[in-house]
Amino acid sequence: MKNPLYEGKAKRIYATDDEQIVLVEYKDSATAYNGQKKADITGKGRLNNEITSLLFLKLKEQGIESHFIERISETEQLVKKVSIIPLEVVVRNVAAGSFSKRLGVEEGRDLSGPIVEYYLKNDELGDPLVTIDHILELQVATAQEAAILREKALQINTVLSSFFNDLGIRLIDFKLEFGTDADGNILLADEISPDTCRLWDKETNEKLDKDVFRRDLGSLTDAYENILTRLGGHQHV
Amino acid sequence: MKNPLYEGKAKRIYATDDEQIVLVEYKDSATAYNGQKKADITGKGRLNNEITSLLFLKLKEQGIESHFIERISETEQLVKKVSIIPLEVVVRNVAAGSFSKRLGVEEGRDLSGPIVEYYLKNDELGDPLVTIDHILELQVATAQEAAILREKALQINTVLSSFFNDLGIRLIDFKLEFGTDADGNILLADEISPDTCRLWDKETNEKLDKDVFRRDLGSLTDAYENILTRLGGHQHV
Repeated sequence: MKNPLYEGKAKRIYATDDEQIVLVEYKDSATAYNGQKKADITGKGRLNNEITSLLFLKLKEQGIESHFIERISETEQLVKKVSIIPLEVVVRNVAAGSFSKRLGVEEGRDLSGPIVEYYLKNDELGDPLVTIDHILELQVATAQEAAILREKALQINTVLSSFFNDLGIRLIDFKLEFGTDADGNILLADEISPDTCRLWDKETNEKLDKDVFRRDLGSLTDAYENILTRLGGHQHV
Repeated sequence: MKNPLYEGKAKRIYATDDEQIVLVEYKDSATAYNGQKKADITGKGRLNNEITSLLFLKLKEQGIESHFIERISETEQLVKKVSIIPLEVVVRNVAAGSFSKRLGVEEGRDLSGPIVEYYLKNDELGDPLVTIDHILELQVATAQEAAILREKALQINTVLSSFFNDLGIRLIDFKLEFGTDADGNILLADEISPDTCRLWDKETNEKLDKDVFRRDLGSLTDAYENILTRLGGHQHV
Protein backbone atom coordinates (compact mmCIF):
# COMPACT_ATOMS: atom_id res chain seq x y z
CA MET A 1 0.00 0.00 0.00
CA LYS A 2 1.26 3.47 -0.80
CA ASN A 3 2.22 6.08 1.80
CA PRO A 4 -0.54 7.31 4.09
CA LEU A 5 -1.86 10.85 3.71
CA TYR A 6 -1.75 11.01 7.49
CA GLU A 7 -0.74 8.73 10.32
CA GLY A 8 -2.19 9.20 13.76
CA LYS A 9 -1.69 7.29 16.97
CA ALA A 10 -4.37 4.68 16.20
CA LYS A 11 -5.11 5.02 12.48
CA ARG A 12 -3.59 5.63 9.08
CA ILE A 13 -5.46 7.52 6.35
CA TYR A 14 -4.86 6.70 2.66
CA ALA A 15 -6.05 8.35 -0.52
CA THR A 16 -8.28 6.35 -2.90
CA ASP A 17 -9.04 6.74 -6.60
CA ASP A 18 -12.00 8.88 -5.60
CA GLU A 19 -10.87 12.28 -4.38
CA GLN A 20 -13.87 12.57 -2.05
CA ILE A 21 -13.14 9.24 -0.32
CA VAL A 22 -10.29 8.13 1.93
CA LEU A 23 -9.43 4.76 3.39
CA VAL A 24 -8.95 4.47 7.15
CA GLU A 25 -6.75 1.67 8.45
CA TYR A 26 -7.08 0.92 12.16
CA LYS A 27 -3.72 0.07 13.74
CA ASP A 28 -2.94 -2.44 16.46
CA SER A 29 -1.43 0.25 18.66
CA ALA A 30 -2.72 1.56 21.96
CA THR A 31 -1.58 4.88 23.41
CA ALA A 32 -2.61 6.81 26.50
CA TYR A 33 -1.65 9.92 28.46
CA ASN A 34 -0.92 11.90 25.30
CA GLY A 35 1.34 9.15 23.92
CA GLN A 36 3.40 8.62 27.08
CA LYS A 37 2.11 5.05 27.43
CA LYS A 38 2.21 2.86 24.32
CA ALA A 39 1.75 -0.77 23.35
CA ASP A 40 1.08 -2.94 20.30
CA ILE A 41 -2.03 -5.02 20.88
CA THR A 42 -2.84 -7.59 18.22
CA GLY A 43 -6.49 -7.46 17.24
CA LYS A 44 -7.20 -3.96 18.49
CA GLY A 45 -7.35 -2.48 14.99
CA ARG A 46 -9.85 -5.12 13.84
CA LEU A 47 -12.02 -4.61 16.93
CA ASN A 48 -12.17 -0.83 16.69
CA ASN A 49 -12.76 -0.92 12.94
CA GLU A 50 -15.75 -3.21 13.41
CA ILE A 51 -17.14 -1.50 16.51
CA THR A 52 -16.88 1.95 14.90
CA SER A 53 -18.56 0.67 11.73
CA LEU A 54 -21.47 -0.80 13.70
CA LEU A 55 -21.93 2.38 15.75
CA PHE A 56 -21.80 4.69 12.74
CA LEU A 57 -24.44 2.48 11.05
CA LYS A 58 -26.56 2.58 14.20
CA LEU A 59 -26.37 6.38 14.26
CA LYS A 60 -27.25 6.56 10.57
CA GLU A 61 -30.41 4.50 11.25
CA GLN A 62 -31.33 7.21 13.76
CA GLY A 63 -30.76 9.99 11.24
CA ILE A 64 -27.28 11.05 12.36
CA GLU A 65 -24.91 11.23 9.41
CA SER A 66 -21.20 10.55 9.69
CA HIS A 67 -18.26 10.32 7.32
CA PHE A 68 -18.60 6.49 7.32
CA ILE A 69 -19.22 4.75 3.99
CA GLU A 70 -18.38 1.06 4.49
CA ARG A 71 -16.08 -1.39 6.17
CA ILE A 72 -14.00 -3.10 3.48
CA SER A 73 -11.71 -5.43 5.46
CA GLU A 74 -10.98 -6.50 9.03
CA THR A 75 -8.99 -3.34 9.71
CA GLU A 76 -10.12 -0.92 7.00
CA GLN A 77 -13.09 1.27 6.23
CA LEU A 78 -13.89 3.82 3.55
CA VAL A 79 -15.03 7.24 4.70
CA LYS A 80 -15.94 10.57 3.11
CA LYS A 81 -13.00 12.93 3.02
CA VAL A 82 -13.61 15.77 5.47
CA SER A 83 -11.57 18.60 6.85
CA ILE A 84 -11.32 17.84 10.57
CA ILE A 85 -12.37 20.65 12.93
CA PRO A 86 -9.50 20.70 15.45
CA LEU A 87 -11.71 20.19 18.51
CA GLU A 88 -12.37 17.09 20.56
CA VAL A 89 -15.98 17.24 21.69
CA VAL A 90 -16.48 15.28 24.90
CA VAL A 91 -19.86 14.33 26.36
CA ARG A 92 -20.01 13.15 29.97
CA ASN A 93 -22.92 11.43 31.72
CA VAL A 94 -20.99 10.19 34.74
CA ALA A 95 -17.90 11.70 36.40
CA ALA A 96 -14.70 9.85 35.45
CA GLY A 97 -11.13 10.29 34.29
CA SER A 98 -9.79 13.81 33.84
CA PHE A 99 -13.13 15.34 34.83
CA SER A 100 -13.01 13.65 38.25
CA LYS A 101 -9.37 14.52 38.72
CA ARG A 102 -9.56 18.17 37.61
CA LEU A 103 -12.74 19.02 39.50
CA GLY A 104 -12.51 16.72 42.50
CA VAL A 105 -15.71 14.81 41.69
CA GLU A 106 -15.68 11.14 42.68
CA GLU A 107 -15.43 8.78 39.71
CA GLY A 108 -18.75 7.08 39.10
CA ARG A 109 -20.98 9.90 40.31
CA ASP A 110 -23.93 10.52 37.97
CA LEU A 111 -23.94 14.05 36.59
CA SER A 112 -27.19 16.00 36.84
CA GLY A 113 -27.31 16.12 33.04
CA PRO A 114 -24.91 15.53 30.16
CA ILE A 115 -21.94 17.89 30.10
CA VAL A 116 -20.29 18.89 26.83
CA GLU A 117 -16.64 19.94 26.78
CA TYR A 118 -14.39 21.11 23.96
CA TYR A 119 -10.68 20.30 23.89
CA LEU A 120 -8.25 21.79 21.41
CA LYS A 121 -6.77 19.00 19.26
CA ASN A 122 -3.10 19.79 19.81
CA ASP A 123 -0.77 17.06 21.06
CA GLU A 124 2.03 19.53 21.77
CA LEU A 125 -0.24 21.45 24.16
CA GLY A 126 -1.72 18.24 25.60
CA ASP A 127 -5.21 18.87 24.14
CA PRO A 128 -6.23 21.64 26.56
CA LEU A 129 -9.83 22.24 27.62
CA VAL A 130 -11.14 25.33 25.85
CA THR A 131 -14.15 27.58 26.33
CA ILE A 132 -16.23 29.18 23.60
CA ASP A 133 -14.23 32.40 24.07
CA HIS A 134 -11.01 30.45 23.39
CA ILE A 135 -12.50 28.71 20.35
CA LEU A 136 -13.48 32.06 18.83
CA GLU A 137 -10.13 33.68 19.66
CA LEU A 138 -8.16 30.78 18.17
CA GLN A 139 -10.56 30.74 15.17
CA VAL A 140 -10.93 26.96 15.25
CA ALA A 141 -14.69 27.27 14.85
CA THR A 142 -17.36 29.95 14.74
CA ALA A 143 -19.90 30.34 17.56
CA GLN A 144 -22.51 28.80 15.25
CA GLU A 145 -20.28 25.82 14.44
CA ALA A 146 -19.51 25.27 18.13
CA ALA A 147 -23.24 25.30 18.87
CA ILE A 148 -23.83 22.74 16.08
CA LEU A 149 -21.10 20.48 17.50
CA ARG A 150 -22.70 20.68 20.93
CA GLU A 151 -26.17 19.92 19.60
CA LYS A 152 -24.97 16.98 17.50
CA ALA A 153 -22.91 15.62 20.39
CA LEU A 154 -25.97 15.68 22.66
CA GLN A 155 -28.11 13.95 19.99
CA ILE A 156 -25.47 11.27 19.59
CA ASN A 157 -25.35 10.87 23.36
CA THR A 158 -29.10 10.27 23.48
CA VAL A 159 -28.95 7.61 20.77
CA LEU A 160 -25.82 5.84 22.03
CA SER A 161 -26.76 5.94 25.74
CA SER A 162 -30.07 4.24 24.99
CA PHE A 163 -28.47 1.77 22.59
CA PHE A 164 -25.70 0.75 25.02
CA ASN A 165 -28.15 0.64 27.92
CA ASP A 166 -30.16 -2.01 26.04
CA LEU A 167 -26.94 -4.03 25.80
CA GLY A 168 -26.29 -3.80 29.55
CA ILE A 169 -23.65 -1.10 29.20
CA ARG A 170 -23.42 2.38 30.74
CA LEU A 171 -22.08 5.07 28.43
CA ILE A 172 -20.01 7.05 30.95
CA ASP A 173 -18.42 9.54 28.56
CA PHE A 174 -17.06 9.73 25.02
CA LYS A 175 -15.05 11.88 22.64
CA LEU A 176 -16.15 12.88 19.15
CA GLU A 177 -14.50 14.62 16.26
CA PHE A 178 -16.25 16.36 13.43
CA GLY A 179 -15.25 17.46 9.97
CA THR A 180 -16.52 19.61 7.15
CA ASP A 181 -17.19 17.92 3.79
CA ALA A 182 -16.74 19.43 0.33
CA ASP A 183 -20.29 20.87 0.49
CA GLY A 184 -19.63 22.56 3.84
CA ASN A 185 -21.72 20.10 5.89
CA ILE A 186 -20.50 19.31 9.38
CA LEU A 187 -20.28 15.52 9.72
CA LEU A 188 -19.40 13.25 12.60
CA ALA A 189 -15.96 11.78 11.79
CA ASP A 190 -13.03 9.91 13.36
CA GLU A 191 -14.17 6.82 15.31
CA ILE A 192 -16.50 5.74 18.11
CA SER A 193 -14.97 2.81 19.93
CA PRO A 194 -13.82 1.70 23.38
CA ASP A 195 -10.75 3.86 22.64
CA THR A 196 -12.94 6.97 22.62
CA CYS A 197 -15.79 5.96 24.99
CA ARG A 198 -15.90 4.91 28.62
CA LEU A 199 -18.18 1.86 28.74
CA TRP A 200 -18.99 0.18 32.05
CA ASP A 201 -20.96 -3.02 32.55
CA LYS A 202 -24.34 -2.01 34.02
CA GLU A 203 -24.36 -4.76 36.64
CA THR A 204 -20.72 -4.96 37.72
CA ASN A 205 -19.33 -1.54 36.64
CA GLU A 206 -16.52 -3.53 34.99
CA LYS A 207 -14.59 -1.25 32.66
CA LEU A 208 -14.86 -2.32 29.00
CA ASP A 209 -12.81 0.45 27.42
CA LYS A 210 -9.33 1.94 27.09
CA ASP A 211 -9.11 2.47 30.86
CA VAL A 212 -8.29 -1.28 30.92
CA PHE A 213 -5.08 -0.31 29.14
CA ARG A 214 -4.53 3.09 30.84
CA ARG A 215 -4.87 1.58 34.30
CA ASP A 216 -3.56 -1.97 33.65
CA LEU A 217 -6.86 -3.63 34.55
CA GLY A 218 -6.53 -6.74 32.38
CA SER A 219 -6.85 -7.72 28.72
CA LEU A 220 -7.84 -4.89 26.43
CA THR A 221 -8.88 -7.25 23.64
CA ASP A 222 -11.11 -9.26 26.02
CA ALA A 223 -12.89 -6.04 27.00
CA TYR A 224 -13.25 -4.85 23.39
CA GLU A 225 -14.42 -8.34 22.23
CA ASN A 226 -17.06 -8.17 24.98
CA ILE A 227 -18.34 -4.87 23.54
CA LEU A 228 -18.25 -6.17 19.96
CA THR A 229 -20.14 -9.34 20.91
CA ARG A 230 -22.89 -7.35 22.64
CA LEU A 231 -23.11 -5.13 19.56
CA GLY A 232 -23.75 -8.29 17.54
CA GLY A 233 -20.43 -8.18 15.71
CA HIS A 234 -18.36 -11.06 14.42
CA GLN A 235 -16.71 -13.24 17.03
CA HIS A 236 -13.01 -13.70 16.47
CA VAL A 237 -12.08 -17.34 16.62
CA MET B 1 -5.76 41.97 67.50
CA LYS B 2 -7.96 38.91 67.94
CA ASN B 3 -7.85 35.83 65.76
CA PRO B 4 -8.75 36.28 62.11
CA LEU B 5 -12.01 34.84 60.77
CA TYR B 6 -9.98 33.68 57.81
CA GLU B 7 -6.38 33.85 56.69
CA GLY B 8 -5.51 33.64 53.01
CA LYS B 9 -2.18 33.79 51.22
CA ALA B 10 -2.10 37.60 51.04
CA LYS B 11 -4.74 38.84 53.49
CA ARG B 12 -6.32 38.23 56.89
CA ILE B 13 -10.01 38.90 57.55
CA TYR B 14 -11.19 39.99 61.02
CA ALA B 15 -14.64 40.47 62.47
CA THR B 16 -15.65 43.98 63.64
CA ASP B 17 -18.32 45.18 66.06
CA ASP B 18 -20.65 45.48 63.09
CA GLU B 19 -21.76 42.07 61.88
CA GLN B 20 -22.11 43.34 58.31
CA ILE B 21 -18.54 44.67 58.17
CA VAL B 22 -15.18 42.92 58.25
CA LEU B 23 -11.65 44.26 58.41
CA VAL B 24 -9.15 43.18 55.77
CA GLU B 25 -5.48 43.26 56.66
CA TYR B 26 -3.06 43.06 53.72
CA LYS B 27 0.00 40.94 54.52
CA ASP B 28 3.59 41.43 53.44
CA SER B 29 3.70 38.01 51.83
CA ALA B 30 4.00 37.16 48.16
CA THR B 31 3.08 33.74 46.78
CA ALA B 32 2.97 32.33 43.29
CA TYR B 33 2.40 29.05 41.45
CA ASN B 34 -0.36 27.98 43.88
CA GLY B 35 1.84 28.67 46.90
CA GLN B 36 4.93 26.83 45.65
CA LYS B 37 6.94 30.08 45.59
CA LYS B 38 6.77 32.30 48.67
CA ALA B 39 8.50 35.35 50.12
CA ASP B 40 7.97 38.06 52.71
CA ILE B 41 8.22 41.46 51.07
CA THR B 42 8.13 44.45 53.39
CA GLY B 43 5.75 47.11 52.14
CA LYS B 44 3.70 44.88 49.85
CA GLY B 45 0.69 44.88 52.19
CA ARG B 46 0.66 48.65 52.38
CA LEU B 47 0.99 49.01 48.60
CA ASN B 48 -1.81 46.57 47.74
CA ASN B 49 -4.09 47.99 50.42
CA GLU B 50 -3.72 51.48 48.99
CA ILE B 51 -3.83 50.48 45.33
CA THR B 52 -6.95 48.35 45.86
CA SER B 53 -8.63 51.19 47.78
CA LEU B 54 -7.93 53.68 44.99
CA LEU B 55 -9.19 51.29 42.31
CA PHE B 56 -12.38 50.39 44.17
CA LEU B 57 -13.06 54.13 44.63
CA LYS B 58 -12.41 54.72 40.92
CA LEU B 59 -14.87 51.96 40.02
CA LYS B 60 -17.47 53.39 42.41
CA GLU B 61 -17.18 56.77 40.66
CA GLN B 62 -18.10 54.92 37.47
CA GLY B 63 -21.13 53.27 39.07
CA ILE B 64 -19.55 49.88 39.83
CA GLU B 65 -20.17 48.89 43.44
CA SER B 66 -17.78 46.75 45.44
CA HIS B 67 -17.50 45.49 49.00
CA PHE B 68 -15.06 48.34 49.78
CA ILE B 69 -16.01 50.80 52.54
CA GLU B 70 -12.82 52.63 53.55
CA ARG B 71 -9.11 52.31 54.10
CA ILE B 72 -8.42 52.75 57.82
CA SER B 73 -4.65 52.27 58.09
CA GLU B 74 -1.61 51.61 55.93
CA THR B 75 -2.43 47.90 55.67
CA GLU B 76 -6.13 47.71 56.61
CA GLN B 77 -9.46 48.43 55.02
CA LEU B 78 -13.07 47.90 56.07
CA VAL B 79 -15.31 46.06 53.64
CA LYS B 80 -18.89 44.80 53.58
CA LYS B 81 -19.13 41.21 54.66
CA VAL B 82 -20.03 39.06 51.67
CA SER B 83 -20.22 35.37 50.97
CA ILE B 84 -17.54 34.78 48.34
CA ILE B 85 -18.65 32.98 45.16
CA PRO B 86 -15.91 30.35 44.72
CA LEU B 87 -14.95 31.43 41.21
CA GLU B 88 -12.03 33.48 40.00
CA VAL B 89 -13.22 35.56 37.07
CA VAL B 90 -10.37 36.42 34.73
CA VAL B 91 -10.52 39.00 31.96
CA ARG B 92 -7.81 39.00 29.32
CA ASN B 93 -7.06 41.71 26.77
CA VAL B 94 -3.62 40.48 25.73
CA ALA B 95 -2.26 36.90 25.74
CA ALA B 96 0.02 36.23 28.73
CA GLY B 97 0.78 33.78 31.51
CA SER B 98 -1.22 30.57 31.69
CA PHE B 99 -3.34 31.57 28.68
CA SER B 100 -0.24 31.77 26.46
CA LYS B 101 1.17 28.55 27.86
CA ARG B 102 -2.03 26.48 27.71
CA LEU B 103 -3.10 27.60 24.26
CA GLY B 104 0.23 28.25 22.58
CA VAL B 105 -0.44 31.94 21.95
CA GLU B 106 2.63 34.19 22.08
CA GLU B 107 2.74 36.37 25.21
CA GLY B 108 1.96 39.97 24.29
CA ARG B 109 -0.38 39.25 21.38
CA ASP B 110 -3.50 41.43 21.46
CA LEU B 111 -6.67 39.38 21.64
CA SER B 112 -9.42 40.19 19.16
CA GLY B 113 -11.64 41.17 22.09
CA PRO B 114 -11.68 40.68 25.85
CA ILE B 115 -11.90 37.03 26.94
CA VAL B 116 -13.60 36.07 30.20
CA GLU B 117 -12.60 32.86 31.98
CA TYR B 118 -13.87 31.25 35.17
CA TYR B 119 -11.57 29.28 37.47
CA LEU B 120 -12.79 27.24 40.40
CA LYS B 121 -11.35 28.68 43.63
CA ASN B 122 -9.82 25.49 45.02
CA ASP B 123 -6.16 25.45 45.99
CA GLU B 124 -6.11 21.67 46.35
CA LEU B 125 -7.21 21.29 42.72
CA GLY B 126 -4.94 24.14 41.56
CA ASP B 127 -7.85 26.46 40.65
CA PRO B 128 -8.89 24.63 37.46
CA LEU B 129 -10.44 26.42 34.47
CA VAL B 130 -14.16 25.66 34.37
CA THR B 131 -16.88 26.06 31.76
CA ILE B 132 -20.48 27.08 32.38
CA ASP B 133 -21.46 23.38 32.29
CA HIS B 134 -18.95 22.69 35.09
CA ILE B 135 -20.16 25.67 37.14
CA LEU B 136 -23.74 24.43 36.96
CA GLU B 137 -22.82 20.83 37.72
CA LEU B 138 -20.71 21.84 40.74
CA GLN B 139 -23.46 24.28 41.80
CA VAL B 140 -20.99 27.08 42.50
CA ALA B 141 -23.24 29.55 40.67
CA THR B 142 -26.41 29.58 38.61
CA ALA B 143 -26.34 30.32 34.87
CA GLN B 144 -27.81 33.75 35.65
CA GLU B 145 -25.15 34.47 38.28
CA ALA B 146 -22.37 33.37 35.92
CA ALA B 147 -23.78 35.72 33.26
CA ILE B 148 -23.84 38.59 35.80
CA LEU B 149 -20.21 37.90 36.76
CA ARG B 150 -19.21 37.99 33.10
CA GLU B 151 -21.10 41.21 32.43
CA LYS B 152 -19.68 42.94 35.52
CA ALA B 153 -16.16 41.72 34.70
CA LEU B 154 -16.42 43.20 31.20
CA GLN B 155 -17.73 46.52 32.57
CA ILE B 156 -14.85 46.65 35.04
CA ASN B 157 -12.45 45.88 32.20
CA THR B 158 -13.77 48.82 30.19
CA VAL B 159 -13.37 51.24 33.11
CA LEU B 160 -9.97 49.99 34.27
CA SER B 161 -8.45 49.62 30.79
CA SER B 162 -9.27 53.22 29.99
CA PHE B 163 -8.14 54.45 33.42
CA PHE B 164 -4.79 52.62 33.25
CA ASN B 165 -4.29 53.64 29.64
CA ASP B 166 -4.47 57.30 30.68
CA LEU B 167 -1.67 56.53 33.17
CA GLY B 168 0.55 55.00 30.48
CA ILE B 169 -0.23 51.42 31.53
CA ARG B 170 -1.65 48.49 29.53
CA LEU B 171 -4.11 46.34 31.45
CA ILE B 172 -3.10 42.93 30.08
CA ASP B 173 -5.35 40.73 32.22
CA PHE B 174 -6.77 40.58 35.74
CA LYS B 175 -8.60 38.34 38.20
CA LEU B 176 -11.73 39.31 40.10
CA GLU B 177 -13.72 37.71 42.89
CA PHE B 178 -17.32 38.44 43.71
CA GLY B 179 -19.48 37.87 46.75
CA THR B 180 -23.12 38.00 47.73
CA ASP B 181 -24.13 40.46 50.46
CA ALA B 182 -26.86 40.01 53.09
CA ASP B 183 -29.45 41.39 50.64
CA GLY B 184 -28.43 38.94 47.90
CA ASN B 185 -26.64 41.52 45.75
CA ILE B 186 -23.58 40.34 43.84
CA LEU B 187 -20.71 42.71 44.66
CA LEU B 188 -17.15 42.93 43.44
CA ALA B 189 -14.96 41.77 46.34
CA ASP B 190 -11.39 40.67 47.18
CA GLU B 191 -8.76 43.06 45.79
CA ILE B 192 -7.59 44.68 42.56
CA SER B 193 -3.85 45.19 42.70
CA PRO B 194 -0.63 44.28 40.87
CA ASP B 195 -1.04 40.90 42.60
CA THR B 196 -4.23 40.27 40.61
CA CYS B 197 -3.61 42.28 37.41
CA ARG B 198 -0.94 42.16 34.74
CA LEU B 199 0.12 45.77 34.14
CA TRP B 200 2.70 46.65 31.51
CA ASP B 201 4.21 50.04 30.84
CA LYS B 202 2.71 51.28 27.55
CA GLU B 203 6.01 52.51 26.15
CA THR B 204 8.50 49.91 27.34
CA ASN B 205 6.25 46.88 28.11
CA GLU B 206 8.04 46.74 31.49
CA LYS B 207 6.10 44.46 33.81
CA LEU B 208 4.72 46.31 36.85
CA ASP B 209 2.92 43.41 38.53
CA LYS B 210 3.40 40.09 40.32
CA ASP B 211 5.22 38.62 37.32
CA VAL B 212 8.22 40.62 38.68
CA PHE B 213 8.11 38.21 41.63
CA ARG B 214 6.98 35.07 39.72
CA ARG B 215 9.76 35.47 37.15
CA ASP B 216 12.45 37.16 39.29
CA LEU B 217 12.51 40.33 37.19
CA GLY B 218 13.59 42.78 39.90
CA SER B 219 12.10 44.61 42.88
CA LEU B 220 8.40 43.93 43.42
CA THR B 221 7.98 46.97 45.65
CA ASP B 222 9.61 49.26 43.06
CA ALA B 223 7.09 48.01 40.49
CA TYR B 224 4.12 48.38 42.83
CA GLU B 225 5.31 51.85 43.99
CA ASN B 226 5.45 52.84 40.32
CA ILE B 227 1.77 51.82 39.92
CA LEU B 228 0.74 53.56 43.14
CA THR B 229 2.51 56.77 42.16
CA ARG B 230 0.79 56.85 38.76
CA LEU B 231 -2.52 56.28 40.54
CA GLY B 232 -1.79 59.39 42.61
CA GLY B 233 -1.27 57.51 45.84
CA HIS B 234 1.00 58.43 48.74
CA GLN B 235 4.72 58.10 48.12
CA HIS B 236 6.52 56.00 50.69
CA VAL B 237 9.57 57.85 52.02
